[in-house]
Amino acid sequence: MTKQILLNAFDMNTPSHQSNGLWRHPRDQRHRYTSMAYWQDLARTLERGLFDGIFLADVTGIYDVYGNSPDTALSNATQVPTNDPFAIVPVMAAVTEHLGFGVTGSIPYLHPYSFARLVTSLDHLTNGRIGWNVVTGYLNSAAKGVGQVQQTAHDARYDIADEFMEVVYKLWEGSWEDGAVVLDKAAGIYTDPARVHRVSHDGTYYALDAVHLCEPSPQRSPVIYQAGTSPKGQAFAAAHAECVFVANHNRGVVAEYVRSLRAQAVACGRAADDVKVLALLSVVTGESDAAARAKFEDYQSYGLRQGALALISGWTGVDMAKLDPDATIAEMDSDGIRSIASSLCARTVGEWADYLVVGGAAPTLVGSPVTVVDQIEQWVDDTGVDGFNLAYTVMPECMEEFVDLVVPEMQRRGIYKTRYAPGTMREKIFGQGPRLRAPHPAARWRLPTGDADQASAG
Amino acid sequence: MTKQILLNAFDMNTPSHQSNGLWRHPRDQRHRYTSMAYWQDLARTLERGLFDGIFLADVTGIYDVYGNSPDTALSNATQVPTNDPFAIVPVMAAVTEHLGFGVTGSIPYLHPYSFARLVTSLDHLTNGRIGWNVVTGYLNSAAKGVGQVQQTAHDARYDIADEFMEVVYKLWEGSWEDGAVVLDKAAGIYTDPARVHRVSHDGTYYALDAVHLCEPSPQRSPVIYQAGTSPKGQAFAAAHAECVFVANHNRGVVAEYVRSLRAQAVACGRAADDVKVLALLSVVTGESDAAARAKFEDYQSYGLRQGALALISGWTGVDMAKLDPDATIAEMDSDGIRSIASSLCARTVGEWADYLVVGGAAPTLVGSPVTVVDQIEQWVDDTGVDGFNLAYTVMPECMEEFVDLVVPEMQRRGIYKTRYAPGTMREKIFGQGPRLRAPHPAARWRLPTGDADQASAG
Repeated sequence: MTKQILLNAFDMNTPSHQSNGLWRHPRDQRHRYTSMAYWQDLARTLERGLFDGIFLADVTGIYDVYGNSPDTALSNATQVPTNDPFAIVPVMAAVTEHLGFGVTGSIPYLHPYSFARLVTSLDHLTNGRIGWNVVTGYLNSAAKGVGQVQQTAHDARYDIADEFMEVVYKLWEGSWEDGAVVLDKAAGIYTDPARVHRVSHDGTYYALDAVHLCEPSPQRSPVIYQAGTSPKGQAFAAAHAECVFVANHNRGVVAEYVRSLRAQAVACGRAADDVKVLALLSVVTGESDAAARAKFEDYQSYGLRQGALALISGWTGVDMAKLDPDATIAEMDSDGIRSIASSLCARTVGEWADYLVVGGAAPTLVGSPVTVVDQIEQWVDDTGVDGFNLAYTVMPECMEEFVDLVVPEMQRRGIYKTRYAPGTMREKIFGQGPRLRAPHPAARWRLPTGDADQASAG
Repeated sequence: MTKQILLNAFDMNTPSHQSNGLWRHPRDQRHRYTSMAYWQDLARTLERGLFDGIFLADVTGIYDVYGNSPDTALSNATQVPTNDPFAIVPVMAAVTEHLGFGVTGSIPYLHPYSFARLVTSLDHLTNGRIGWNVVTGYLNSAAKGVGQVQQTAHDARYDIADEFMEVVYKLWEGSWEDGAVVLDKAAGIYTDPARVHRVSHDGTYYALDAVHLCEPSPQRSPVIYQAGTSPKGQAFAAAHAECVFVANHNRGVVAEYVRSLRAQAVACGRAADDVKVLALLSVVTGESDAAARAKFEDYQSYGLRQGALALISGWTGVDMAKLDPDATIAEMDSDGIRSIASSLCARTVGEWADYLVVGGAAPTLVGSPVTVVDQIEQWVDDTGVDGFNLAYTVMPECMEEFVDLVVPEMQRRGIYKTRYAPGTMREKIFGQGPRLRAPHPAARWRLPTGDADQASAG
């Protein structure tokens, strides 16, 4: 392989994201997630390692399917407590210059008018380093949190999401022309009203008749992340997503997904590499293979399998407390579990849960830097992914070790950058920007008089 | 007077808040409001001056009543463009240790479940420095932004607000007991599920059945700010508010308001000084009275009266473009305008607009530090207010000069602190806390087993 690997840290504003129980490790510092110092130290480490970004997952709800109760999630810290992902973005941006932020925002719990303003505000403050991970919501507990009886059906959620995207694109791209802010102190004209336009939208799910409240930020629309794998989800990703996130142990499944997604993007008129695919990955490394293996086994000994089962129950909607975790999945009468688990190469639910103890629902590479990077290259060659979302194990040491040991080995082989590219997050990842271009659907709402090459004022 | 004056900076994430046109001043830096450096420099200046906090106003909408168009607001930069106030709080918190944040959140555009999480997240990150200015919303343009035909009627908005407060208090105070996070690495128990409780609410406007997503933050409920002066607004403030904000030129009116509000708070079972009243104020100072006067006249020459009229039109709902600004208000046939303008000591709408050129809809004190502090003392003696919300004129010089010239004079007279008190924002302002105590309505939802003196983990 010769292409440069993209790298995101995969994280969440919570003590325990996907490595269930590793908060118990004596060296783990993750309980400090409520403090500013924790996130600033982490951001500095990631920027030292030239990470493209930090991807912040979010779940607006609690995992209460397992045992029909939130108790296991609470005692195991299975993604609860969990704080707002957007609150830590300015904190980390304040001590970095290049690191990007892919932040999860779940459409059912957002209003497009105020959400568009929040994203524009952050894109200004970070000089164009904001990405948005578009999620359509999936926990019934979250639906109850906003007063619904249960979640909207899966396909309808994508219809709502399509309309939401149209509204926010109109606000980001079609309300303020480039150059609308003239800042003419002598004439007393801050903004030229002729270059600001009301956005009118009267749809099935959203109605709006308003001027976007913000002047254009460096990227206008944020870098769009998405992670849908269902047919509707893939179609949505092919149309909208710039970075797509996959989580699977099975290289064949991932390779087929990459091929299918790029083909669909091309069918939408986009270039195949207008969509970057990042695979979930976890790494446990050390000076030697033996040292890394010993570390992995040490980590494993702190795992909490019940927390992993609570996570799987929330994802699948099936209460794993009622199943024998060692029964083979092939024998289970749930199509959902069968299709997910088999693609993960898990023979039993228990095996699946074991994955969620060190590194999440994806491969965990264990070995010296040479061994790890051999496998990284093999993964890219076998699947065609553009890079990785690196899930954490014991924090912050796993990220520090990755930066100190694995990054230099990737650089030595010429598969990883040795300095950041200039510009916004979009320019760094795609080598072009800072704005989305046709035929991306956001560009449809760009004003004909707008000039993408002219920087906005302010 | 002997009591210590409380001091907030009055600001908004926008180029021009209340001093219409002063962004035109050659030394004004306000167009840098989109940048992180601007807010961090300002925060450092305010903390150097021992300000208790920065109060961030917000308007979710655009001032389009004047001339039935947003054009004047846009060209004059009348509170537009305007970015999200919450986005800059972590930015300023990252470079300060004591400065508090009173942030406006408008109830019609928030959902209690996600808003409660945002506030708790920020209270964690800032070590308990978050206040929330409760606003019920007032621009029709904002209602259209969220797909409503027009604003909800005034009194109904307070009914909605009362119910919103109940829901967020339940989440902040009644979901997680103190000590619920045990962080027992050996036993593998992060949170004790027996000490986390589901919040159920089935009301007229909100329904909820959910666990708060966050562990308790230092203050739990943020310091509650409010600015209502209508009968419904005063009743709301007397019940809920810890800091109340008034804007009026007329000391008699302010004195009566302070007396009435404290009496209503006492009728609610609270102590008279459980509610701090902050009056809007602006200061133009210099080495001498003459120097300050010259600076004031220089500032005035940059004013944009039309922008001020757009602001007044938005506040009153009356299109000032249709009125003769020099007609006396007493002759106008709008009760709303008469009652507001007369209390401001404005004889005409034009006079009112002139106030909104240097310093906002409140007194602007002009003079040497001795002259200014004489008047500050007189204001406190005449009205009984606890302190001031300091509106800006030319930024950042007005705040730097206040800190360098006025603060030392107040300290010399013993009416202003010489160091910050320890603890959270609530403890700094009230000398007790960090949690709200009975009979404040938030305390009603505290769990009987909770122990306010026991710090929460994490």
